[in-house]
Amino acid sequence: MTVAYDGRDFSGFAPQPNAVTVGGALAGALQRALRMEGPPELGIAGRTDAGVHAWGQVVSFDAPAEGLDLERLQRSVNSQLAPRVVAREVACAPPGFHARHSALSRRYRYTVLNRPVTDPFLAATSWHVAEPLDLGALCLACDPLLGEHDFTSFCRAPRGVANFSLVRRVTGARWTDLGEGVLRFEIEATSFCQQMVRAVVGTMVLMGTGRRRAGEMRSILLQRERAAAGRVAPAHGLCLWSVTYPADVDGCA
Amino acid sequence: MTVAYDGRDFSGFAPQPNAVTVGGALAGALQRALRMEGPPELGIAGRTDAGVHAWGQVVSFDAPAEGLDLERLQRSVNSQLAPRVVAREVACAPPGFHARHSALSRRYRYTVLNRPVTDPFLAATSWHVAEPLDLGALCLACDPLLGEHDFTSFCRAPRGVANFSLVRRVTGARWTDLGEGVLRFEIEATSFCQQMVRAVVGTMVLMGTGRRRAGEMRSILLQRERAAAGRVAPAHGLCLWSVTYPADVDGCA
Repeated sequence: MTVAYDGRDFSGFAPQPNAVTVGGALAGALQRALRMEGPPELGIAGRTDAGVHAWGQVVSFDAPAEGLDLERLQRSVNSQLAPRVVAREVACAPPGFHARHSALSRRYRYTVLNRPVTDPFLAATSWHVAEPLDLGALCLACDPLLGEHDFTSFCRAPRGVANFSLVRRVTGARWTDLGEGVLRFEIEATSFCQQMVRAVVGTMVLMGTGRRRAGEMRSILLQRERAAAGRVAPAHGLCLWSVTYPADVDGCA
Repeated sequence: MTVAYDGRDFSGFAPQPNAVTVGGALAGALQRALRMEGPPELGIAGRTDAGVHAWGQVVSFDAPAEGLDLERLQRSVNSQLAPRVVAREVACAPPGFHARHSALSRRYRYTVLNRPVTDPFLAATSWHVAEPLDLGALCLACDPLLGEHDFTSFCRAPRGVANFSLVRRVTGARWTDLGEGVLRFEIEATSFCQQMVRAVVGTMVLMGTGRRRAGEMRSILLQRERAAAGRVAPAHGLCLWSVTYPADVDGCA
């Protein structure tokens, strides 16, 4: 299932007790739609943090095969959750498919609204930075991210996991000026570690304002120390845009 | 002052007791920013109903001339109200200027999201119509609106006002296909009567689905009876886009 959601209303994706999460809402809606005895366990392409949006989140789950009607399932989920959470597409996957483990790459978008004054219609999906940003500096800062790097300077390692690798391979990273002060950063990697995109954006924006030099990005990566980079950018500017899978995962088994 | 706001959070513009209104919030913010003893009386270019958005609403008021700093006034209002209400521009007007009486024309936009499935990021600013709409029929239905007409079939006359004229002059009206199911209706008139744009859109959308013939629009106008037209389209698809004034109103007296 490909799912879009407005992250503002949720404490992230991963189901938690006593918190409204996208995963919790979705599992509940699926349970009702499929008349299951308990909520299905969800495979998630990218665990988004609290406040982070998604356009192309992918979720996998086991559904009873008997009488399964995908269009009806989609309608039922949407009638329960839309427009905050929207099931954009529903499809069967081959046996063994898992939204996280089968994914080849993820693409995130981060939007910065770089104007003196904010905008009520973009405020929910962008970070308002009033100070003028130098697009050339942003692009310069972005280039060293490409390729395989240890992202320790930009990530929060999971607690209690020994020797967790923060090496990630970035296959695309660029800034685009969409006009009227809307600057979009797009980054693709085989996978991401926690807070990686937001810490990268927070650091690049410091460079865009001139407070740090754009040429420092490479050395920040090499230092492998969280304190070397800047703070995380706000969650509401970030959106999980799309996830790529091998070509053969489409269609019912 | 040119003001943008997200209408979802407000019971319309006009200040009312026991309701959160854009005008009430703005007058309060201006009173605090200008250290006035009471809230200023606001001239309003277009009274938007509950839930209706604005990008270019214009508001006029008398401010104490002593020590008036327009940039500081704008910053203060925005620090109090943004991002729900944003003061986009602040300027001095010549004596006698009134946001409503001095306006030459108003322009509204109505956005329809015509896709089988809604979108969490467009839901707040568009009307989701799942049934396919025929753009040709929408355009055909739109043409007869141009020119001067009695809009009794599309308007709510104010209560208790005798002989209130519902004749309005429409100087522009067209539908644009923005792609991916986003259809935008834009209409300009010297002035509008209450619910006029929403009733026009509600009627045109019926024609776009084929439930009514697009050729009926002219006769609906001529009938001058509210029941002849369709229901009002939802408020959250509507946005007061811009207001035009004579060229000489800009600049301090």
